[in-house]
Parts: sequence; C-alpha cells; structure tokens
Amino acid sequence: MRKTFIVVAVVFAMLCPESGGAQEIVEQWERFELSLDGPRTGNPFREVQLSAEFVKGNRKVPADGFYDGNGVYKVRFMPDEPGQWSYRTISKEKALNGKKGNFACVPASGDNHGPVQVADTFHFKYADGKRFYPFGTTLYAWTHQDEGLEKITLQSLANAPFNKVRMCVFPKYYAHAHISNEPGRYPYVLKEKKENADGKVTFSWDFEQFEPGFFQHLEKRIDDLKALGIEADIIIFHPYDKGHWGFDSLGKENDLHYIKYLVARLAAFRNVWWSLANEFDYVKTKPREDWDDYTKAVVKADPYGHLCSIHNGSFYYDNWKPEYTHASIQNGSVVEDFGRAVLLRDVYFRPVVYDEVCYEGDLPQRWGNLSGEEMVKAFWHGTIAGTYVTHGETYSNPGDTIFWAKGGRLIGSSPPRIRFLRDLLEQGPGPLELADPWKDHRVARFNPKRREAVNQSAVRPAGVQGQAAEGVTSGGGSYFLLYFAEQMQTEWAFDLPKKNGPLPGQKFKVEIIDTWNMTITPVPGVFEADVADGYRVFDTKRQKIKLPYRPWLALRITETE
Amino acid sequence: MRKTFIVVAVVFAMLCPESGGAQEIVEQWERFELSLDGPRTGNPFREVQLSAEFVKGNRKVPADGFYDGNGVYKVRFMPDEPGQWSYRTISKEKALNGKKGNFACVPASGDNHGPVQVADTFHFKYADGKRFYPFGTTLYAWTHQDEGLEKITLQSLANAPFNKVRMCVFPKYYAHAHISNEPGRYPYVLKEKKENADGKVTFSWDFEQFEPGFFQHLEKRIDDLKALGIEADIIIFHPYDKGHWGFDSLGKENDLHYIKYLVARLAAFRNVWWSLANEFDYVKTKPREDWDDYTKAVVKADPYGHLCSIHNGSFYYDNWKPEYTHASIQNGSVVEDFGRAVLLRDVYFRPVVYDEVCYEGDLPQRWGNLSGEEMVKAFWHGTIAGTYVTHGETYSNPGDTIFWAKGGRLIGSSPPRIRFLRDLLEQGPGPLELADPWKDHRVARFNPKRREAVNQSAVRPAGVQGQAAEGVTSGGGSYFLLYFAEQMQTEWAFDLPKKNGPLPGQKFKVEIIDTWNMTITPVPGVFEADVADGYRVFDTKRQKIKLPYRPWLALRITETE
Repeated sequence: MRKTFIVVAVVFAMLCPESGGAQEIVEQWERFELSLDGPRTGNPFREVQLSAEFVKGNRKVPADGFYDGNGVYKVRFMPDEPGQWSYRTISKEKALNGKKGNFACVPASGDNHGPVQVADTFHFKYADGKRFYPFGTTLYAWTHQDEGLEKITLQSLANAPFNKVRMCVFPKYYAHAHISNEPGRYPYVLKEKKENADGKVTFSWDFEQFEPGFFQHLEKRIDDLKALGIEADIIIFHPYDKGHWGFDSLGKENDLHYIKYLVARLAAFRNVWWSLANEFDYVKTKPREDWDDYTKAVVKADPYGHLCSIHNGSFYYDNWKPEYTHASIQNGSVVEDFGRAVLLRDVYFRPVVYDEVCYEGDLPQRWGNLSGEEMVKAFWHGTIAGTYVTHGETYSNPGDTIFWAKGGRLIGSSPPRIRFLRDLLEQGPGPLELADPWKDHRVARFNPKRREAVNQSAVRPAGVQGQAAEGVTSGGGSYFLLYFAEQMQTEWAFDLPKKNGPLPGQKFKVEIIDTWNMTITPVPGVFEADVADGYRVFDTKRQKIKLPYRPWLALRITETE
Repeated sequence: MRKTFIVVAVVFAMLCPESGGAQEIVEQWERFELSLDGPRTGNPFREVQLSAEFVKGNRKVPADGFYDGNGVYKVRFMPDEPGQWSYRTISKEKALNGKKGNFACVPASGDNHGPVQVADTFHFKYADGKRFYPFGTTLYAWTHQDEGLEKITLQSLANAPFNKVRMCVFPKYYAHAHISNEPGRYPYVLKEKKENADGKVTFSWDFEQFEPGFFQHLEKRIDDLKALGIEADIIIFHPYDKGHWGFDSLGKENDLHYIKYLVARLAAFRNVWWSLANEFDYVKTKPREDWDDYTKAVVKADPYGHLCSIHNGSFYYDNWKPEYTHASIQNGSVVEDFGRAVLLRDVYFRPVVYDEVCYEGDLPQRWGNLSGEEMVKAFWHGTIAGTYVTHGETYSNPGDTIFWAKGGRLIGSSPPRIRFLRDLLEQGPGPLELADPWKDHRVARFNPKRREAVNQSAVRPAGVQGQAAEGVTSGGGSYFLLYFAEQMQTEWAFDLPKKNGPLPGQKFKVEIIDTWNMTITPVPGVFEADVADGYRVFDTKRQKIKLPYRPWLALRITETE
C-alpha cells in the first residue's frame, strides 16, 4: 500500500518536475528547488537578498536563496518529515517576494536514509536510525579535473569501500606538478589573466561575483556521490593556493559572503558535511580567531545541522566548541600503535574521525609513503578504540594523477582490506568501544550500557546532548573484537577484561580473523566465561586456541545462544 | 649593599612583628596579615563582611578578609612588588571599617622565588623567572593525622625529591581501614555525634560556622611545606566522604561560602595551587555544570592568579576553559608507553601535569601496585614528552599509614630515581619538548625557538597568552635527551630527527644515562652532525656508540663549544 503510493508519487514527480518552478512531490531528505526569475542588473550576488520560510504544521524552517546566474534565483530545501509543506519567499525585490506554494513530502525509500548525524556520543547514524560507520577517503581536487578523469574517479568509488570523501571547493595548487593543475572552471569571475616572460601567470578576479557554473558542477559531483551512497565532506577553505589564484586571501568580508553563498547552495544536499578547513593552521592568511566567525556563519546559515568539523595541520583547533559535531583530526601517530587513538576521544567527548593519518603510497615525503599494511593497521587501531579513520592514496599513478589529489584509479593494497573491516563492523551488533579503555588497548566491545554511563549529567560536558537509545540496529548481546596488529603469537588463552567484560556463565564462539588475507576461521568449541579473576575473565576450563604465527590477526568473540 | 638592607629589614620585622596589628615590613611574596577585633555575636562567618584594598602607586589590589574566631578578623595580602604599600579596610561593621596603614615590601631573598606561574605555554616558572619543574607526590590526608605522624611526613619530604604535594582540605574516608581515619579537627562546628548499637557514627554539623582551628592547622602545614620549598596543590573538594561526614554534600550555597572562606585564608600563601577537585566526576553529589561556578568563584576571589586545575576520575573536565592554568590529569596509560603523553598536551595547549598515573606500591588494586621501575618510567615518558608527572606511594607501611593517604615514611624505590631525573632537568638548559612530536617519540630537546612557533596568532587558542621569552635560565644551545625505556640494544648510531634537530657541523658529546642505577657515563669522542638525510641527521662519520645491554637507559647529547 505504502510502496504503491511512493511509486505513484515518484512517477508523478517525474511527470510534473516543475509546477510554478518547483516540484509538487519531494521525497523526505531529497531536494526541493524553487526557481524564480529576477533582476539581472547590478550585482545580484550582493545586491539581492532572497529567502523562504518552509512550514509544516507548527514548524517553520527558514532557508536562504541564491543567485544562479542568467536572471535565475533559487531556493532549495530538504524536508525532513513526510507530509504537506508550504512555503513563502521573502525578498525586497518584488519579483522574488511573496511567492507561495506547497509540496507533498513522501517517505524516504530505497537507499535514502537521510543525513548522517551524531549518535551515542562517539558515533554516527543516518537520520532514519541506520548506523553509519565512516570509512572515508581523500580526493582533494577531484572535481577540478576533466570530465574523463572525473568519470574514472566515480567508477573507482563505485568499486571502493569508501562512504565518505574529503574534497575541496576551491582548486588546489601545490609545489609538485603532478599535484597541481589548472581547473576548467573558477568560482569567481575572472577579470584578467596575465602571463609574464617567465611563464608565470597572474589572475585578477572579481571577488564580488561568483561563477554559478563552477558551483553547478560541484553540485553535480555531490549528487554523483550521493547516488553511490557516499557522504561529501566539503572542505570550505584550504591552504593550497600559495598565491596562485588568491582564493585563500579573499579578505574576511568576501570569505563570509562565500560561506553564505556556498551554504545556501549546498545545505539541501543530504550527503553534505561541512569541513571548515583542511589544515586550518597552515592557512596563514586567516588569523586563528576568525575561524570562530567562519564556523558560526556556516552553522547559522545551515537549517539542517549538517555535521561540521575543522581539520588541523600541526596545531588543533578548539574541537570542543559546540558548533563542531565531531573532531576531524590530522595525526598519523595516534593510529600507529595501541593506546593512543582513545586519548583524543576522551578529551573531545564526541566522535573522532582521524581524517589524515598519512597515506598509502610511494611519495618521498613521509606523509605519503605508508605501506598497505600500515594503512590497514591505522584503520584497525582507530576502530578498536571507537574512533574512525580516513584513507588516502598517494601512489604515482600512470598519468601521474595521484588518487588523493586528482582522483583516477586506485592501485593500493589497502582498499579491499578496508572493505573487509567495514563489512565486519556493519555485520556487528553496533559501534565499538574499548572495554577497559586505559588498561587494555586491544579489546573492543559493543556495549549498549555505555550510553547510560556517558549520559549522566555528572560527566557530560556542557553542550553535549544526552543521546536517546534509539537507532541501535540490533539487540546487542556480548560481542568482542580483539586486535593483535603486528604482534605474533602461537596461541591465545581466552582472556578478556573484567571491566565491561563477559559475565560468568556467558558462552562464546571465537573466530580467527586474518585482517590482511581477509579470512574468517571459526575455532571449534564453545568458551564459557568464568567468575572474574582480578581484573580478567578466563574460560572456565582455561581453554586456549592455536593461532597461525602471522601478523595482522584479530579475534571475533560472539556470545552464543 | 642590597643584602644588608634585607637582613636589617628581616631583623626589624622580627623585632616589631605587630604594629597596630600588622607588620611594617614584609618581604615580596611573603604574607602581610592585619588582625582586627570585631563583633563576636551572631554568626560572624556569614553576617560580617570584611575586605581591604592594597595600594601601591596606581595599582589597587583588593583582598577579602575572614573571621578567625574569638572576635578576631584578619586580612591577608601577598605583595608582589617591593616598595611602599598602603591599605584601607572596608566593612559595614564600624570596628572593622576604614582601618588604614602601610608597610614596606622588601625584595625577595634566599629561597623565595615567588609563586609558580605558567611559562612558555607548556611549562612553569617562579614569579622571579627561575624555572620550576613539578615533581609532585600525593599526600591526600596527611594534615589530618596526629602531630607525630605529620612531623615524620615532613621529615620524609625534607629528604625526598618532591617539590609539590597534592593534599585535601577535607578529611578522607575510604573503604579500607588503613586508609581512612577520624581526624582530630573538623572544618565545621560539630553539633552532635551519635553512635548507634552497631557502632556506626553519625555526625550533625553547623555548615554555617567554620572551625578556625582546623584551618589554622592546615595553614601551619602549608607554611611547613613552603619552608621545604614545596608547593601545596590544595584539593578543594573530593569524593572520599561516602556519607561519613557529609563534607561532599554541603549544598551549593555552603560550597560557595566554603570557597570564599578558604580562598580568603589561603590566597596570600605563595606556595598554594588550587585543585578544584580530586576525581571531580566521582563526586556524585555535584552536577557537572556546578564545577564552572566553583572554579569561577575560586578565580574571582584570588587576587594573585594562583595556578588552578581540576583533576578527573574516568571523564575529563573541560581543561581548556580559561580559568584552568594547566591540565591536571589522571590517566596511567598516557605515560606507560611512547607517543601518548604528548597527545593531551597538544589538545589542551597548556602545561599538562599527569597528577595520577597509578602509584608505586603493593595494594591488590591495579592503581596501587606499580613497581618502582614502572613509576620511574612514567616520569621519564612524561618528561620526554614535555609534560610533568606526579608520584604516589601505596606500600603497606609498618603501622599501615600508606604514604599516599596519611604520610609517614617513604619505602619505595622510585624516589631516588625521580631525584636523579629532577637533577638532570634542573641542570639542563630549559624545559624539554619532543623534537619531532608525532614521528619520533624518544627524542626530547630544549628548543628556544619553539616559543616563537606557538606564539603565532594563527595557532594560539583564544585565552592562551603569548609568552615572552623572559625566564629562560640559560642561553640554550642544542641539547637532546633520548629515552629507551625498557628497550634494550647493544649500540646506538648517532641518529636524531631533522625536525628541530642539529644543524650540519654542530658538534656534540654523548653521555649514557642509566636512569635506574643513576649513573652518567661519558662516551669518548665528539660527534658531528651531517647534512640531514631525509628526515634524520647522522654523524658525519656514521659513528655508533656501544650501549650496555640493559633496560632504562637514556642518552644526553649536548653541543660542545
């Protein structure tokens, strides 16, 4: 019955895509778009204000509009609730003011689970409650390439394990020829381009006029990612300009106009995350205190509360500030060994995504030459500690595109192993935490009780909301994941922490996981938790299991009926 | 000339200790105290307000007074500048209002270096610029013991390497008989004490009336520590009451009165640090949001800006808040292995004192049974990472006092090794930092240039002041300390990081330090830094040195002329 309704609604929407310039039927968390004709004279980007109010019952949601060029103005909106919505535009321009209409929002269908949100203090879920475990990759300048390369990148992503992409709005200019390139589109109107006798190019821009085509292309690519089930972690500012275009040196007023324009265009895309900057502290043109203003401008303009973070170079920003939904951290050392990744999570008390931990590749720079094994180990260390890790690949590809910068084809050995880990996590009962965080750095568990502990007002920092228990995909039960990293041993005695550990009499099956060869081997027999002996829990018969003498093993320990 | 003047001044001060109830000469950073007679009726603690304003030239410093019992009111003041100071009291009570006077402040002498302050973002110095490297110990309830035991504790401290003591204002009640005991003095007026048939004692207090004798005794002990050159890290609240006295359950209004009274009494003691709580999150009687109010009350009442922190149990407080001068952290795991201690320092961007890292002892609890080797290792890991570590001893002493709780005699093996490390640090050119913090976790160096880097406004968080270059005790020069912990090796090739490493042509001598056996063995010959090879710097002749195949070694690498 409900399904039929959706099919009819979608067909109807396809048949009648515009009615007075807008759809009549919109799926929940999809994009409503109203187009209006307005003034073309003067500078519409600066001189014309447009917004709209979207109403459903008692709810009123404001949304900013924007000028899309050629006399066309748009307001976009992402309805988060099925039902009848109405809207009314607000502008000082008569042609844009007081336009009314309404549309039916129909429930989400298929792979549409809504935008990703924070869940259970340290984790994520989609708006519909489905768990989201970020397994990101890095593609800083992939949308500034030619159509052919961008298509190849999308094909690579379709076959890759990644569900999040870090990507810059502005093009990237870097010391190495194989990293920088001149894009086909620019975000601002080009006034003049000069080349001196040495071949050095200088640009002159009108920073008060955007090039809508640049943003339309970006949006197309964000939609392409959405179709692949991939979140777009949009990097608003970055330091890789080096005086070439000057997009890192717009001045504060132009910066704030850019934020307003960008958020008005992109906030209605459900797969958008805001990353205020990549390596904010390397953007030498902006003083540290201005980042607060930029962050607040983004959050204020976004009616939907998309995920929001700021990524660091050598010095962290104040990730505890309430505007940041999670900490986006560059620091390779935190996931290089046991016992580190959890430390930043304890401090920030929100999800931690280690968004830069060095890259798998063969660059001479040490940040770009991890082995596949090191990259996979980084993911496991992060996962075991209840945090998340982002991939990047810096092999010199044929054609020298380098995946991490321009996209193209993935040639590293880590992606299949990252897929294997992602599958393990998604098949598990829920997000992991270290069972005994400051004492045993190898044993993670799913622990539904953890939420209760961190929800006590005695421990929760101001601004961190208590999380309801909603959105747990499975009933739980005891579930442990134990990681050995490069440490090799011939046997393992059933030996788990007492803290958040198994209760006496609980029975378990054990599987040996080879995280590199991607095998899961069941161990015969059943293990039974004894009464705790000091701080540890052993099997009642003190059973041991044999392990292959190899690195990169893990154990999955699951309660049996 | 100056020395003579000071001697005369001190003798004069001794001969004329009171003149109109106050001293006429006070040494800089010593304590001026004005005593006044006032009303004894009603509840002077609550009903009588007294403060004074201290003036020198254009400076005006307010200081709160307090009721000290028996009709005596006091105002204390710590002058921080030599010269002539005057004062005037302010009160609604006629007997206490408008009392004027003045005194001469003479320069600090002898071991008086003033209060300890933050220096160079991550470190400490005394007000006179002398470096202070905290090497603390823990004596939670030492001032609640009998006179004999307290004297033994002071004797132990006189012979110990510690220059900071963590100590509670309120007595400590704990599950184990050997840890708790009934003190001889209480902070509040006892109304009734009942013992039921099972021997359980219940107290009834007047929480609106303090017992001045309790605080006078505490002050005597703080002065005893001052005479030994030891800072008193005063723990204002703690969770070790368990319903026995109820001092953790005064209610917010009484808590704030207690803070005001305590700070009025103690702020003029130059060796006082404020520790808002021990294990704040285990104080289940106070909601998390109230700690902000308590902290602000302390800082507001303290005219001198004493060091201020809050110590955690399982969850950290918001150590980045501007009231906290440094982070006081409980977490043993951070100093158990390489690469961890620096992580919290990066985040908090202020000095980090790992004030609880488990204790050397033989308790069955895992927090109380580190070996001496583990305790010393914790100090070295903290030091190498540019942070500081606090000792505690939990051996079951004869008489069962346990140093960490009641004081008494130290019997552990770590104190002499901590002394050895403290001497090394104090003999060095200045505070240490990891040279290449996220890549090489073994090599620390003194780096005067570091200050410049962290003073850039692009990286410095709001509220963190840029530090002037003052207070560096020595001219610097290249100085490295390399720690091996338990890792044994037979040789070491001269091999240092390029980042913050030696420059080509710099010459070094190397000494092998046995951190456990406390020996320093010079290595013959001179090493010369070559041009960096990738990220490392080697000796020009690729010299190696032989190492004894033992754990707990370190190397001191010092530039030669």
